[in-house]
Amino acid sequence: MSTKPPSGTRDFLPDDIRRREYVIGVVRDVYERYGFEPLETPAFENIETLLGKYGEEGNKLIFKILRRGEHASSGEADLALRYDLTVPLARVVAQYQNELPRFFKRYQIQPVWRADRPARGRFREFYQCDIDALGTTSVLVEIEVLSAVAEVLGRLGFEHFDVRVNHRELLMGLLAAAGVPPPSRDAALVAIDKLDKIGLDGVRAELVSRGVPESAAAECLALFKTHAPAALRSRLQNDERALYAIEQLETIAALAAETAAGRHIRMDPSLARGLSYYTGTIMEIAVPDLPGSLGGGGRYDRLVGMFLGREVPACGFSLGLERILVVMDERNMFPPQIARGSVDVMVTIWSHETRNQSIAAAQAFRDAGLRADVYPEADKLGKQFKYASARRVPFVAILGDDERARGEVALKDLRSGDQTSVRRDEAAAFVARALERRT
Amino acid sequence: MSTKPPSGTRDFLPDDIRRREYVIGVVRDVYERYGFEPLETPAFENIETLLGKYGEEGNKLIFKILRRGEHASSGEADLALRYDLTVPLARVVAQYQNELPRFFKRYQIQPVWRADRPARGRFREFYQCDIDALGTTSVLVEIEVLSAVAEVLGRLGFEHFDVRVNHRELLMGLLAAAGVPPPSRDAALVAIDKLDKIGLDGVRAELVSRGVPESAAAECLALFKTHAPAALRSRLQNDERALYAIEQLETIAALAAETAAGRHIRMDPSLARGLSYYTGTIMEIAVPDLPGSLGGGGRYDRLVGMFLGREVPACGFSLGLERILVVMDERNMFPPQIARGSVDVMVTIWSHETRNQSIAAAQAFRDAGLRADVYPEADKLGKQFKYASARRVPFVAILGDDERARGEVALKDLRSGDQTSVRRDEAAAFVARALERRT
Repeated sequence: MSTKPPSGTRDFLPDDIRRREYVIGVVRDVYERYGFEPLETPAFENIETLLGKYGEEGNKLIFKILRRGEHASSGEADLALRYDLTVPLARVVAQYQNELPRFFKRYQIQPVWRADRPARGRFREFYQCDIDALGTTSVLVEIEVLSAVAEVLGRLGFEHFDVRVNHRELLMGLLAAAGVPPPSRDAALVAIDKLDKIGLDGVRAELVSRGVPESAAAECLALFKTHAPAALRSRLQNDERALYAIEQLETIAALAAETAAGRHIRMDPSLARGLSYYTGTIMEIAVPDLPGSLGGGGRYDRLVGMFLGREVPACGFSLGLERILVVMDERNMFPPQIARGSVDVMVTIWSHETRNQSIAAAQAFRDAGLRADVYPEADKLGKQFKYASARRVPFVAILGDDERARGEVALKDLRSGDQTSVRRDEAAAFVARALERRT
Repeated sequence: MSTKPPSGTRDFLPDDIRRREYVIGVVRDVYERYGFEPLETPAFENIETLLGKYGEEGNKLIFKILRRGEHASSGEADLALRYDLTVPLARVVAQYQNELPRFFKRYQIQPVWRADRPARGRFREFYQCDIDALGTTSVLVEIEVLSAVAEVLGRLGFEHFDVRVNHRELLMGLLAAAGVPPPSRDAALVAIDKLDKIGLDGVRAELVSRGVPESAAAECLALFKTHAPAALRSRLQNDERALYAIEQLETIAALAAETAAGRHIRMDPSLARGLSYYTGTIMEIAVPDLPGSLGGGGRYDRLVGMFLGREVPACGFSLGLERILVVMDERNMFPPQIARGSVDVMVTIWSHETRNQSIAAAQAFRDAGLRADVYPEADKLGKQFKYASARRVPFVAILGDDERARGEVALKDLRSGDQTSVRRDEAAAFVARALERRT
């Protein structure tokens, strides 16, 4: 029987968890300071909640759970694992509309599952850190969302990153201006979304294969390289919706100026992103020299309506925890205290008969807030020391015959080799002071 | 389309999450102080990892995931959702045996899924908070585990709870002494495990229906009510393994005396627990007047061997988060600060033209560590105040024409109705001081 985790998934050992928890702690703290509230949803949803929400490709990647009970043998699936955090949010907003505030700002940090082909940095189980604000079409939501995720990255130590913004109506306007016929426009967006991966020539070929005339494909690519609002305006001067989109993007850049996102924002008319539910602003954060993105989001004013029957405007952003961790790992961006071991002091066992004394000593360390371990067996002291040293435990406590007779405990600093005997009721304070000085 | 979460699962809205996070925070803090290290495993396992580990009943309750890709239409399952945290731990220990310390102490706080019939307090998705120590048969592990979980409950405010302990070899000795024939002993344990649920007469009937002679069944029930070690010893005097088990239980009670578990420990020869993998100590924590348990555990020295081929002794305990939350909710055991809203100050919008000032003011509050929200629209001020009040936000900030002209901001305390104008660079400190005084 294999003891590896299933393909595309990972076990997180203690050092991994500490790195993950550090990043999640920063994300949560920033999201809370922006007034977002925590939400969690079940790992699986009724299958009809998810089907049809992520486009054809997404549908194929949904993990399906076999129906239980009398229909178990039918091979039918009635549940499916969470594929993202946005569709469950839309369901939640529809279900609890009377309990939630009119402007509901929620964050959600949970794993999602996609039956993608596993590859370097691509997993079948991975965490998303989402913020979304619902109930208003105000552009202030875009500002808050962008500022919060930019502040997360800043707090984690990222200095150079681009916040690319675009607008679905600008994309549509450019496709129209390039002469892409209306029935091919959604397909054209899927092709343009691959610009990073397959390059200009690749996109041109895919556009043509998806039914876009050669001339329109070439015009498309030229247009999507145009970043200056003035140039875009002159090209789109008869398209009111596209012009409004440009104005929205300019407003976002202006209002974000004094926020954490300010200096990072770039308008990028080629930013498409795969998801079909975006209706307005489209956003993505990328780091130079790294393919792919650290996260993305956008405005989706019609998704909640699919569950509720009436529309609730919404806008959000999803940071990808795994990509952030990969970059931080490669660039050594974790603070040194993360590498600290998991135990401050290990109490040794002097003899089988005196082990109750070791238990009591450990309890005293723990009551003082220290992380204390008790060696479990009455092994030779040298062996116990060696074990503590291998586990990077800074202090060991020894309760020898002499120490016990004097009501003391010997404390050995395994980093310096110094050993001191102190009164038992002063041992915890001694270790706490010594660790404070050194870390 | 239904917008409810799937049967047996729950959505956790912000107030729910704050209660859950409070309890998880205490659990994690105590576990860490006992030297346990965090571990996380994937939500699903290869199906053969789980099948055959939980007995016949358990097998039926495992959620199975449909195979993806070319075999998708076969209706075959190749993955299964995590059913507990112990079997994945055994797999992890087998897989990473060379990276983990010889005595591996891990904690794991993650959801598990069981296709049980949903009922009041019984869910299909629920969290377990496990600690386990591997690598030694030393009874010090039982002491550490019991002390840690008792300390968790103490820190959460539980005063009266029983830590019941038993030993598989004592159970087996009593069954032999009662005259239960060897082939019926495992089945007899399943019946005895139901004592809490179906009472003495129910157990007697079930024993008989499982092939135990009437006289042996009656003797069984009499014996299992015997708690005094001396009486047990005289009844089991020729059964060395059972006598050793009694000695182990006495050692545990003696060594635990000075720990958080000490005064709660009761030897209970009728404690069986369902799981077949226990080999030694069996433990359970129960609260008076509450059916069922808050958690349980035991020693399972042979489970890792099923994955590794060589045995690794192990012992652990699982606290059930949901049961703990139910009791704390009923008894109002949460500290008052949990009910604090999610926002300290809401910045209002004076006018569409001055909204950039509101964004900047919110940023200043956030930079000072406060949780600040910006009202998203230029609604009438009264409407904005009403919204903040409904959301239990203690302070609103107003940037009227006069305040802006003077470089000030007006701060209204919605609890007292007091309004004060302060310099903008002093606003955050003012709110922080006021909140500290009040909470």
